[in-house]
Formats: sequence, C-alpha cells, structure tokens
Amino acid sequence: MEELHISPADPRGSPAKEQQAAGVGILLQIMMLVLSFVLGHVLRRHRFYYLPEASASLLIGLTVGVLANISNTENNIRAWFNFHEEFFFLFLLPPIILYPFFVLTQSGFSLQPKPFFSNFGAIVTFAIFGTFVASVVTGILVYLGGVTFLMYKLPFVECLMFGALISATDPVTVLSIFQELGTDVNLYALVFGESVLNDAMAISLYRTMSLVRSHTSGQSFFMLVVRFLETFVGSMSAGVGVGFTSALISFLVVCYSSDLNFPNLFKYAGLDIDNLQNLESCLFVLFPYFSYMLAEGLGLSGIVSILFTGIVMKHYSFSNLSDSSQKFVSAFFHLISSLAETFVFIYMGFDIAMEQHSWSHIGFIFFSILFIGIARAANVFSCAYLVNLARPAHRKIPMKHQKALWYSGLRGAMAFALALQSVHDLPEGHGQTIFTATTAIVVLTVLLIGGSTGTMLENLQVVGDEHDGPLGESFEANNGYIAPSYDGESSSGNRFKMKLKEFHNSTSSFTALDKNYLTPFFTTHGGDEDEHDHFLGDSRR
Amino acid sequence: MEELHISPADPRGSPAKEQQAAGVGILLQIMMLVLSFVLGHVLRRHRFYYLPEASASLLIGLTVGVLANISNTENNIRAWFNFHEEFFFLFLLPPIILYPFFVLTQSGFSLQPKPFFSNFGAIVTFAIFGTFVASVVTGILVYLGGVTFLMYKLPFVECLMFGALISATDPVTVLSIFQELGTDVNLYALVFGESVLNDAMAISLYRTMSLVRSHTSGQSFFMLVVRFLETFVGSMSAGVGVGFTSALISFLVVCYSSDLNFPNLFKYAGLDIDNLQNLESCLFVLFPYFSYMLAEGLGLSGIVSILFTGIVMKHYSFSNLSDSSQKFVSAFFHLISSLAETFVFIYMGFDIAMEQHSWSHIGFIFFSILFIGIARAANVFSCAYLVNLARPAHRKIPMKHQKALWYSGLRGAMAFALALQSVHDLPEGHGQTIFTATTAIVVLTVLLIGGSTGTMLENLQVVGDEHDGPLGESFEANNGYIAPSYDGESSSGNRFKMKLKEFHNSTSSFTALDKNYLTPFFTTHGGDEDEHDHFLGDSRR
Repeated sequence: MEELHISPADPRGSPAKEQQAAGVGILLQIMMLVLSFVLGHVLRRHRFYYLPEASASLLIGLTVGVLANISNTENNIRAWFNFHEEFFFLFLLPPIILYPFFVLTQSGFSLQPKPFFSNFGAIVTFAIFGTFVASVVTGILVYLGGVTFLMYKLPFVECLMFGALISATDPVTVLSIFQELGTDVNLYALVFGESVLNDAMAISLYRTMSLVRSHTSGQSFFMLVVRFLETFVGSMSAGVGVGFTSALISFLVVCYSSDLNFPNLFKYAGLDIDNLQNLESCLFVLFPYFSYMLAEGLGLSGIVSILFTGIVMKHYSFSNLSDSSQKFVSAFFHLISSLAETFVFIYMGFDIAMEQHSWSHIGFIFFSILFIGIARAANVFSCAYLVNLARPAHRKIPMKHQKALWYSGLRGAMAFALALQSVHDLPEGHGQTIFTATTAIVVLTVLLIGGSTGTMLENLQVVGDEHDGPLGESFEANNGYIAPSYDGESSSGNRFKMKLKEFHNSTSSFTALDKNYLTPFFTTHGGDEDEHDHFLGDSRR
Repeated sequence: MEELHISPADPRGSPAKEQQAAGVGILLQIMMLVLSFVLGHVLRRHRFYYLPEASASLLIGLTVGVLANISNTENNIRAWFNFHEEFFFLFLLPPIILYPFFVLTQSGFSLQPKPFFSNFGAIVTFAIFGTFVASVVTGILVYLGGVTFLMYKLPFVECLMFGALISATDPVTVLSIFQELGTDVNLYALVFGESVLNDAMAISLYRTMSLVRSHTSGQSFFMLVVRFLETFVGSMSAGVGVGFTSALISFLVVCYSSDLNFPNLFKYAGLDIDNLQNLESCLFVLFPYFSYMLAEGLGLSGIVSILFTGIVMKHYSFSNLSDSSQKFVSAFFHLISSLAETFVFIYMGFDIAMEQHSWSHIGFIFFSILFIGIARAANVFSCAYLVNLARPAHRKIPMKHQKALWYSGLRGAMAFALALQSVHDLPEGHGQTIFTATTAIVVLTVLLIGGSTGTMLENLQVVGDEHDGPLGESFEANNGYIAPSYDGESSSGNRFKMKLKEFHNSTSSFTALDKNYLTPFFTTHGGDEDEHDHFLGDSRR
C-alpha cells in the first residue's frame, strides 16, 4: 500500500492528501471485506463451525489492527477507519435488522407465521418482561460491582443504561447455525422472536434511562413509565403504520398490474415484468427507511420503528410480491446485511487491537460477562416458568430449550450500536469504558459462544437429524395455528394464572383478527397459509 | 409535514431540531422517490413514451420545488436537500455507470459482445476523436459567444472545460426506448458504446483543462497531452487491472466451488449455493468500488476507472457467475441505479425551481443548446465519414443511423456530476453559471429529446417491427465476429485510408486475442460465444 503515498503529485496539496489517505483506508477495508467473504466461504465449505463468518471477520480486523500497531503508523491508519455513527445507523444497521425477516433459504427456515404466532405469548414475555429483568439485574450487579471496588464504578443510572444496551442480543450467528443444522421450529421461533423484539425493548430502555440521566431533577417514576411507553409504543405504532401502508401500496400495485401475470398476452410484457419487479423492490427498500426517518423525525427510535415495519412487511407486503421479486428482495437484504455485518465485525476487531487497554477495563469486562450470564439466566428461566404456568402440559417449554435459549444470547451489532451512542451520551471516561467493554463482550461472545453453539446445541439434543424430518407436520402435531383453547385439564383457578391465560387468549384473538381481516385485506392470497406450511414441510425432505 | 415540527419536545434543543429537519427532508425525498416510481410505472404501463421516467422524476422535483417556493419556507426546504458531492460520486454515480453493462432483459438487448467488438473501431472513433471534436467546437463557440456579447463571457480554458463536461452523453433514456421498441443491433452497439466511452473521454478532458487552469504558467502543449494521457490511460489501466483481478477471483471461486453445480451430492448444498451466490454478488459489488478507490488514491479518475472495470467485468467475470447470480446482479444494479437516477433527476427538477434566474443565464442556456447541437453534428458526421472511409461498402454506417446517433445525444447524470464539480473548481460566478446552465440543458434535453426520441426513431425508420426479427441472424449476415478482411473491392491506395484500416485490423487482432487467450483463461466457458447469440436470436421470437 505504501506506494500509494508516493503516487503522482497532486497539485491540491494537503486536503487532497487527506482525501487520498481516506481512499487508501477504503481500499484496505474493501480488501478486508473480500478476504472475509472468501475465507468465510472456504470455512463453510469445510463445515468448520468453530469459526463462523463473524469470527473470521473479527480475526481479520484484529490481525490488521495488530499489524498496524506494530508498524507504528497507528495515527495514520486510525484515521482511515473514520467510522461515522450516522453511517452506521443509517446504512449498516437497517439491513442487519431487516435481513432476518426476509430469509428465504431452500432449507425452509424463514420466519414462518404459524410457529411465530403460536409462540407469540412466550416471545413477548421473553422479549419484554425478560429483557427488563435482564437489564435491571445487570445494572444492579454492575453497580454493586462498582461499589465493592470489583470493577470501574459508574453511577446507578449509567449502570442501568449499560444493563439495557448489553441486553440486546444478536440473532444472526445462532440462527445461521440453526439453519445449517436444523432444529425444532418452536425453538427457532422462540430464539428468533426473542432476539428481534428484545432489541426494541433494549433500545427503549436505554433511551428512557438516557432521558432520566439528562433530567435528574423532578422525574417521578410515573414520568419514567410514560417516557418509556412513549418511545416504545410510539415507535411501534409508527413502524406498524408504515408497514401497513407499504402492504396497501404493494397490494394496489399488484392489482393494477395483475394482467402481467399472463405475459403472453402482451408483446413487451417481459420488460414490463422486469420493471414491475424493480418497482416492487424499490418500494421494499424505501419503506423501511421511510419508517426510520418518520420515527426519528417524531423524536422516537428509528430502529425500533424499522423492526416493526419489518415484521408487518414480512407478514403482509412480502406475500404480495411475485416469486422472483421475493427471491430478489431476500437476496438483496442478504447481500447488504452480510456486507454491513462483516464490516461491523472487522471494525470491532480492528478497534480492539487499536484500543489502549487498562486493567480497570479488563476487570470491567470480566465481571460484566459474568453478570450478563447471570442476568440472562434470570431472564430465561423466570420467563420460561411464567410461560409454562400458562401453557398446557404438552406445550410446556422443555428444559433443554430453555438452556439453548440461555446459551444463544450472543451480543452483536445492536449492543455495539448503543455503546457507540453512549460515547456521545455519557461523560468522556464512562462512555469510553462502556464502549470498550461492550466491544470486548461482543467479540468474546461471538468468538466463544458463536464457535461453540453448534457443539452445545448438539449436546442439548435440540439439533440434528431427529428434528430434520417434515418440520411442518411435527409442528402441526404439537400446536395448531390458533393457540389451543386450554382444554379442561388446567383446573387450578389461581388468579395470576388466569391473568396469564387471558393474555394468551388475547394473543389468539389477534391471530384470529389477522387471519380473518388483515391478511385477506392486505395480501392477494386469501387464506392460503397452508401453502407456506407445505413449502416448509417439503423443502426438508 | 408541518406537524413534525411541533412533535414531542426533544431535550437536546437546536442541533436536534436541525437533525429533525434533515429527517423531514429525507422523508420528503423518499416520498418523492416512491411517487416517481409509481408514476413511472403507470406511464410505462400505458405506453406513454412522451414522458419517460426521467422526465416524470424531473417534473415531480420541479413541482415540489415550485410549491416550496410559493410557501415561502425556501430556506428551510433548501436545507433539507443538502446534497453532498461525495455522496453523489460515491453512491449515486457508480451504479448509474455500471448498470448498463449488466442489463439482462428478456428482450435480449444487453451489451452483446459481437456487435460491440465488430463496431469497436467506430465506437472508439466516435467516443475518443468525436468527443474531442465536440468539446473543442463547443468550447470555441461558447468563447466566441462570450466575445460577441451573445452570452455570459468565460475565459477560454473555462469554455473548454464547459465544452468537455457538456459533451458527456447519457445513454439511459435512449437505450431504454431502444429496448422497448427494438432496433438494429449495430446502431444499439454504436449508441451504447459511444455514450459509455464518451464519458471517460469527457472526464479526462475536463480534468486536463482543470489542471491547465490551475497552472497557467509554463504549460506546454506537450505537457497537456502528457497530463491527458496520464489521466485517461492511467485510469483505464487501473480499471482494466481491477477488472481482470475480479475475473480471476471469480474464476477461482467458481472452480473451488464447482461441485456445487451438483447439489444432490451434498446434504446442505442448497444453503451452500445460496451462500455462493451471496459471495459472488458481494465480490461483484465490491470490485467496482475497489477500482474507484484505487484510481482516486493514485490521483486518477475513479469514474473512468470504474467504467473500464465494468467493461472487463461484463465480458469476463459476469459469465463466470451462475445463472441465478447473473439475474441477481443485474436486478441489483437495476434497482440501485434506478434509485440513484430518479434521485438525481428529482434533485435537478427541484434545483431548477429553487434557482435564482437571471437573463444572462437564460441566454447562456439558449446558445449553449444551439452550440452543443452543432458540436454533436460535427462529432457524429465527421467521425461517420472517417469510419465509412475505412469500411467496405456493405458495412458503411447509413445516414439514418448517423442521424439517430446525432439525435440520441441526451445529457444526463455525468454532465451534472462534472458541473457540480466545476462549482468547486471555478471562481464563484463562473462555476455557478456553468452549473445552472448544465442543469437546465440536462433538464431540457431529457424532457424534449427524451420525450420525442420514440417518434424521431420511428420517423428515421430505425426502430420497429422490420428490425424485430431474429437479430442475431441478421447481424450474422452483415458482419462476422472477426471484422471482415476487406476483400479486394477496396482498391484505392490512399495513405490515410490505409492507416484507418490498419487501426481496424488492430481492432480485429484484439478480438482474436480476446477469443483465443483472454476468454478461455478468465472464464469457465471456453469459446461458447454462440450461446449468447442464440439467446439473442431466440428471445426476440
């Protein structure tokens, strides 16, 4: 790369040189991206699951960072990686969030509506209540750790902020392993649903705590709850609204162009279909951004909003697309999300190598990892207990699924994003400590948990060939589309249990609303959900 | 939109408000994009060729701009459209440049290698010599116009800069009409090849003139030529080098993964193929950027480099991709290029409405349009004369093709990009005048020429059903893959003609080099070019 610096003289002098340095940085980044992709491909081809793609990217970033450190050109190279927060939030995070919704692999493991809806109550419990528990437990433990001089001391509110941001789990690596190895659809729905909604909760909690921190005077607990609901419900409503708008528009476009389904009738219909696909895809790419911008414009959380837009679009708009458009949209989000994710992991590896380490950070990282393990256990096992209280015997979440759920709590891009924001939100030392700790935690969990998830899931016997049969059918046998009506056998009339069941029933009435009104209205296929199920069943044979 | 300003109070005050305004701007832009796409789709469905998509976008931008002007919130809205030059050059221009290479429509009108190579000499003549002629003629006429007080007076070098930037033609609208209506493959290859290479020439000329302007002292004509060759040949070499690297890597990836073509042999091969496609697509997206950055890092022109990378990638790397990857890459570039282009046209319309107009600008615009028409005539007819001198009788470019070529000289995104740069390169008033004039010229040519090209081409009888037959065969009948060996009938021994023919022969020896060495080495298909041809022929039936 050195020869680039002695390239033909540019008359514009210093600013041009700076621009050139930025160019060299981007060149280096592109080379690292290419290397990561090729390496990831080779590793996957040899079924070497101990080093998933994310870890490979991390290690490449780490290696380049260490080399840069040794070659003493640190300041120069540091400048190459000028990582704008805005760039991250606007261009890297949205595809990473959206991709999981639109996976359409041949192995049939996309977010199928049935297992998702029948586990909706459990998912919401894990994601909303569980994440709240995990955040508070982590926050309190980190605060106590600070008080007892085990680790760097942070104010209580900042501990809660850290607890919230570190509770955002990342589905990508675990889900990709699930997809390759095959697993129970219910477990898949739980892990996926939890890790998706959990981000929304973590962000809302983080924002609420951030508001509390900046207005220390006269904040009642009531105001706190209002602020939280404002962020969460507001962003959710904006996201859901944009999602339904997109469903409506895609529905109208499809109706308007419905004669295109018979290409032989029109002379240039081939081209028209190409253009229709392009239009559909454009709308699909634009609406999530619209949702993001609308929420941010309203002072809400764009990421939470985009999440809910993704959910609604997956369920309603996506099925309006033609087959080829569905394939394209899926491949498109796959492409940009893997580019974005690889970039984030390379950056994290690089950052770790560049960081000035101090012992206080090492202690903070070590105890944080311990505490988030405890907090995740508090989340998973308490929520599973609650969910099992409300479920009939044959639908209880088995212990091995609970353990798998506990183990699959990787931290990823979202925790990193919030930590990046905390550097701006908190005073210098504190934000930097949180950022360093979060980066290290993400790297360690990705390397350790990501590398061992395959083995762990096999030991828990939740993956492998016995689950590899016709998933659709085995699902069909266990759980209907409509949540079961709790036949007789639940006899105890405990009031708390009743409440839980009411909540479950409201879930099933939402399912009915969806099936009877929303799906027929917003999509072109009346109620042919079974088609999806057949696809799921067939594709695994 | 107004309610967004009185949204829930944000504690961070003014900078947050600014960010909110930017958010509202992006919201508005997304809405305009959605509207443009839907409107464009409706217009195309009704075969209303007088208002192509580009014009529709322009008019939407214009309308919003006028409304914003009337509502007197000009300053506010102006701020919404903070259009960063860097954003344009890095994110909008590359897909617009690359897309035409990877068109893969069902009507078979992509850049087929045969007509392109057999017209290579003509294309190079039009693009290199012709663009030089057009630039110089425009520059001189604009200078003379300034001297005779017909229009705003610019220094001679700046006139040449303007001449160079306004000579960059835009293929997209014309080609899309050609694609919908069908035309002669030779004319298509000429128009396409000329408009692609012509950009490279225009940029290099512009940069050379820009260097001359900033170093007025002691620049000999010799240095000028050296500078020009440095930019042009340097950028071309960088682009071609990266293109061949990409071909080699894609070739290696395909060889390494070649057993994936038999998915039944492997249990999870379905997923592997998905991942392979993702890898291939990533490489395809990354390499053009690598080329851009490499050239910019070397102080050369990234856009010229990306152009040549596109040419090489189209010819060698693209054929290594699997069918589904080819479809995906094509749809991907279609998507982002149409987003980028629509955005640029909306912006131009908006800018026109916002601009403070003065009479000097109107005059400048009027005479510029006159002069570029004259300059384009000088380009097309003189080059066609030269080409026809060297060609045997049955391959001469007919007058109606020359007229069609003259007429299809729309100005588009590239001229706009260079004008945007000239605002920075030239003193305040001059750069602004050139920018305003260029924007207006682009808008007018797109509206007038774009809207009437269909009619014009029909009047010239170069489109329509008589050309709609098996194109491959009619091409086969007229011109072989190897340029013909000038059998006997060219008897006159004029030295100039001999030179021209030597040039033509060198073109055909390049064709032989490509066929015998490059294509077999860099691609997986040995020499099955005929396959492409059959595709071309069949698809029109």
